[in-house]
Amino acid sequence: MNGPTIAVCGGQFCEEPFLGHAEEAGRAIGKAGATLICGGLTGVMEAACRGAAERGGTSIGVLPGSDPGSANPWVTHAIATGIGHARNLIIVNSADAVIAIDGEYGTLSEIAFAVKLGRPIVGVGTWSLIDPGGSPAPIHTAPSGKEAVAMALKLIEK
Amino acid sequence: MNGPTIAVCGGQFCEEPFLGHAEEAGRAIGKAGATLICGGLTGVMEAACRGAAERGGTSIGVLPGSDPGSANPWVTHAIATGIGHARNLIIVNSADAVIAIDGEYGTLSEIAFAVKLGRPIVGVGTWSLIDPGGSPAPIHTAPSGKEAVAMALKLIEK
Amino acid sequence: MNGPTIAVCGGQFCEEPFLGHAEEAGRAIGKAGATLICGGLTGVMEAACRGAAERGGTSIGVLPGSDPGSANPWVTHAIATGIGHARNLIIVNSADAVIAIDGEYGTLSEIAFAVKLGRPIVGVGTWSLIDPGGSPAPIHTAPSGKEAVAMALKLIEK
Amino acid sequence: MNGPTIAVCGGQFCEEPFLGHAEEAGRAIGKAGATLICGGLTGVMEAACRGAAERGGTSIGVLPGSDPGSANPWVTHAIATGIGHARNLIIVNSADAVIAIDGEYGTLSEIAFAVKLGRPIVGVGTWSLIDPGGSPAPIHTAPSGKEAVAMALKLIEK
Repeated sequence: MNGPTIAVCGGQFCEEPFLGHAEEAGRAIGKAGATLICGGLTGVMEAACRGAAERGGTSIGVLPGSDPGSANPWVTHAIATGIGHARNLIIVNSADAVIAIDGEYGTLSEIAFAVKLGRPIVGVGTWSLIDPGGSPAPIHTAPSGKEAVAMALKLIEK
Repeated sequence: MNGPTIAVCGGQFCEEPFLGHAEEAGRAIGKAGATLICGGLTGVMEAACRGAAERGGTSIGVLPGSDPGSANPWVTHAIATGIGHARNLIIVNSADAVIAIDGEYGTLSEIAFAVKLGRPIVGVGTWSLIDPGGSPAPIHTAPSGKEAVAMALKLIEK
Repeated sequence: MNGPTIAVCGGQFCEEPFLGHAEEAGRAIGKAGATLICGGLTGVMEAACRGAAERGGTSIGVLPGSDPGSANPWVTHAIATGIGHARNLIIVNSADAVIAIDGEYGTLSEIAFAVKLGRPIVGVGTWSLIDPGGSPAPIHTAPSGKEAVAMALKLIEK
Repeated sequence: MNGPTIAVCGGQFCEEPFLGHAEEAGRAIGKAGATLICGGLTGVMEAACRGAAERGGTSIGVLPGSDPGSANPWVTHAIATGIGHARNLIIVNSADAVIAIDGEYGTLSEIAFAVKLGRPIVGVGTWSLIDPGGSPAPIHTAPSGKEAVAMALKLIEK
């Protein structure tokens, strides 16, 4: 097995500065010798994979559909699940830590599964979640993609 | 096909007044001739199924495990998915509307999938969610299980 | 919980006499007060659901897609899994016994999962399977849909 | 994206000469610069991953459970699906070609999904399948793990 695996989650339709944070996170993951795992599509996912590729890193794209060719061009290994949105569970389940950047409802489901599964989460401009008892969800926050990866790597060491 | 199908989501470990709301929701679903769908286990799920059974209603329990016998005793039809937490997607996907009562991270994933899939959601003492752009998630709120079902039925008609 | 649940598996594109066997199986399941579970689409699945409906029985259609409306018109409860072919596992996992009528490669995957999960299988004109050690798969054979249900009910009792 | 991805399927409990064929297949995949994908557990899966590792190849283990640590020690990237036997679909869906070595009912489900999805299959001492119309399943046969990989690579080129 390689070093740690870090998930980067975020939407397909995303604007700056979040695409920049995603690419920066990918670069930091690649530089650290960690493996990036994500949903394999466009937006935050593609930016993160491109960043990892810039540093010679490996990125695994866990796709919703049945066609490995639907992955963005920076994905090293495409996992074509064919199980639709249920693939969100697999992304966080396979990660040692999860970074959520911006994000829509798919990302929200990934945050939910990550806490359920005990994976540490770092958010960059992501959801604010207050549980029914009034407590915030255990999401660490970072000001940038680079710092999010540094924080994730520390959380994995613990 | 029968009348509408309404999902009731909530945790396995839940206290009053939420168990009462869940049972009341189940009763209202049964009385309306609708079908209840839920995760089939204990807590909010069991209370809702018991309520439906009190009114002669049908409840479908979509279980995470491989043993149909792990359903609570009030489930009419057990669906033993064997796919773990990924079954959360199936519950809301099969419903015309979703009611979230209290709830932990499994329920949060169901709310996320429900919005993603365009299913209307009514919450009773559930999560407060603010998306990265600062907007609240589209969760209608009801003060009781009975009123949640009335609201869900209206939202389905639209 | 109701009486036993029996899966009827078979292809979407199927000819006589197999559609007749499927309808007959559905009728026998409905008459026995058992619940039919199937893939919810056309062909063998639709014929079986129609048969169950003729006897006032309940049929559950476990669909591959995300739209409950894609079920055949005789399905009582549509489960819209959204997980594609992986839903084949759920059909047999939720059944006490499995009847395979004719069938293509989807049916073959259901037979494989059924044996793996220890569910008894009755075949009507279905696959012939010889394992790598030279032994046939444990598929009971019946000459008709009606006799397949009688055999399945006996196997469940054991 | 890297070169082609080849799945090696087979049981956890397997004897010689099949473990030798699996290791040989893994070596040939690694030597060809292809990526191995498999179920990530023991038996045929572990032997294939060990073979790939001997040639510096990459192997992806698509696990049924939720713990990436349950992968055999030769897996490069563990995908912890948490969806049980349904992960069999993902293995073949992510592959350009499938090699089945010996095998039990899990392997049979993978062969079924592979044909359904149009992936070419090469068998080494695996199942004999006759469909309901009397035709054999389209499984190419090879006498060894090494020749199976050569055949799979040719089938992918077409």
